[in-house]
Amino acid sequence: MNRQVQLKSRPSGIPQAENFQVVEAPMPEPGDGQVLVRNIYLSVEPAMRGWVGAVANYSEPVPIGGVMRSFAVGRVLASKHPDYAAGEYVTGLFGWQDHAVVDAATIQRKVPADGAPISTALGVLGINGLTAYFALLDIGQPKPGETVVVSTAAGAVGSSVGQIANIHGCRTVGITGGPDKVKLCRDAFGYEVAIDYRTADLDAQLAAACPKGIDIYYDNTGGAISDAVLKQLAVGARVVICGTASVSSWDPVPLGPRVERYILVKRARMQGFLIFDHVARYPEALKQLGEWIASGQLCYLEDVLEGLDQAPDSIAGLYRGDNLGKRLIRIAKDDGSAL
Amino acid sequence: MNRQVQLKSRPSGIPQAENFQVVEAPMPEPGDGQVLVRNIYLSVEPAMRGWVGAVANYSEPVPIGGVMRSFAVGRVLASKHPDYAAGEYVTGLFGWQDHAVVDAATIQRKVPADGAPISTALGVLGINGLTAYFALLDIGQPKPGETVVVSTAAGAVGSSVGQIANIHGCRTVGITGGPDKVKLCRDAFGYEVAIDYRTADLDAQLAAACPKGIDIYYDNTGGAISDAVLKQLAVGARVVICGTASVSSWDPVPLGPRVERYILVKRARMQGFLIFDHVARYPEALKQLGEWIASGQLCYLEDVLEGLDQAPDSIAGLYRGDNLGKRLIRIAKDDGSAL
Repeated sequence: MNRQVQLKSRPSGIPQAENFQVVEAPMPEPGDGQVLVRNIYLSVEPAMRGWVGAVANYSEPVPIGGVMRSFAVGRVLASKHPDYAAGEYVTGLFGWQDHAVVDAATIQRKVPADGAPISTALGVLGINGLTAYFALLDIGQPKPGETVVVSTAAGAVGSSVGQIANIHGCRTVGITGGPDKVKLCRDAFGYEVAIDYRTADLDAQLAAACPKGIDIYYDNTGGAISDAVLKQLAVGARVVICGTASVSSWDPVPLGPRVERYILVKRARMQGFLIFDHVARYPEALKQLGEWIASGQLCYLEDVLEGLDQAPDSIAGLYRGDNLGKRLIRIAKDDGSAL
Repeated sequence: MNRQVQLKSRPSGIPQAENFQVVEAPMPEPGDGQVLVRNIYLSVEPAMRGWVGAVANYSEPVPIGGVMRSFAVGRVLASKHPDYAAGEYVTGLFGWQDHAVVDAATIQRKVPADGAPISTALGVLGINGLTAYFALLDIGQPKPGETVVVSTAAGAVGSSVGQIANIHGCRTVGITGGPDKVKLCRDAFGYEVAIDYRTADLDAQLAAACPKGIDIYYDNTGGAISDAVLKQLAVGARVVICGTASVSSWDPVPLGPRVERYILVKRARMQGFLIFDHVARYPEALKQLGEWIASGQLCYLEDVLEGLDQAPDSIAGLYRGDNLGKRLIRIAKDDGSAL
């Protein structure tokens, strides 16, 4: 049998455990051009909120009763496609389930068995690292000496953003929640200043950390954190809109201070980013990210839950801030055998 | 004597007549390197609100008791600078007054006596036309077939934006206030659709006018009009933040629907524009704008008040929407002699 996590009901706002159900389905068999994958690690992303929302955004909503969409890394058990062979590791949108039969075209890439741990294919060498890389460099356009502020600074995306900004000679200021993450930001991810938004007078601490204003704001939260940051933009600032983790519901659209005047007076640029627009350039970014990991310039942290039963509550936990690092669900040993 | 309009008190929000006073000052005399100008036309801009606000934005606030800052076009009466001679027409920030003594370096440019009417140096061949040109082309980056929505579509900036977008092969949709301006948008400024925001179901009319979404939003108003437009952005949309005419006060910052999600889902770009960042490129733009005027592709309309006594209420009138076209105050005949 194949255990799956299905979407049971459509959440309003952040998906909760009760919106999912764990079921047993028949073991799938690959047809021509298809591959059977034994999933090993499943990914948990803030973006999953959008994937299950009733309103189509950049992808179709996961249907009720459908397997939850997710990235996974796993091992090929059987292949009916000439490009893939049993034993190889692959990553792609394989879903929250033990086994997936997928068309070869939907496999994102092979994951080398002798490189970084295969779990990194879902984080720093997956869409999180790729997002940080392209969004910071393309939209943020960091220059040496500039001040870069990152929200969810210790998160899977934010931690890479801060380090890549440091590599480019910027000063980095991280905004995060709680003392453990503040410490992580400074000790592991190289932020010059880390601010705990839960306890801080954010306006005052940002002003102290950014005396010349904020040149780049890499925004993963939206909401009150952004309201504070936008007040302190420098002339010509770039604001990367990557996520809205702090806003619990967009239906109806919540109110906040109008941004037009900040944008106008500072001649700032605010731009949204979606990693799926950049697929063609993944190889160049993965090569660079891999080199930075190998040289010790790019660290990552993983928050690994054990077993498929952890999946239903895992997104809500992410929004509660339970995790330290990239949240994954481990459902098999790295060789694909049962836990 | 030299009649001047001084800032009497600092307005909160939109400057009203009572915030100004008309006074008589001694006739100024030019020193070395200076020029005495007889102002002929004075300009009235929405941006003047910011120039008299207590909060410094991109320029220092006009001091209480100071002559109101404004662009003007006038004629040189006396020159103690070798580059300027009596009888020449010039434009620059000469202020709301009959006569100005200015350092030659503050003169923006000479205005040819045999070209377009000298009043155009304050509008379509002044900062309004230049703003439309650079902001639409640099930030908006219009491409043939794209849908461009303009707020204050019949105004001094908006009317040029719509026509320049048409010249670049776009479909243009204007948002304006009242039936006279709706008619102007269609008949004079070439908008394919013009919408009266005062009477329309803006959401429905925008949806009907922009069935493929909005590729470029040239925003002169902010506020509720922008709230409606942002809901209908196309993927990859560009939003030019040029002004916030619909927002009566920014102290405190008013609330509106949060924009992050629209920006993110549509991978849109929102960017602020200030003409004074582009001074070095004025000549190229003035040449192009002049050619479009000469060929009849770029029309303009002027709303001319007569006499300096009209100045104090003129900004408030602009925000009330009293004007049809670029608002000017004529204080002398075109040859510089008294009215």
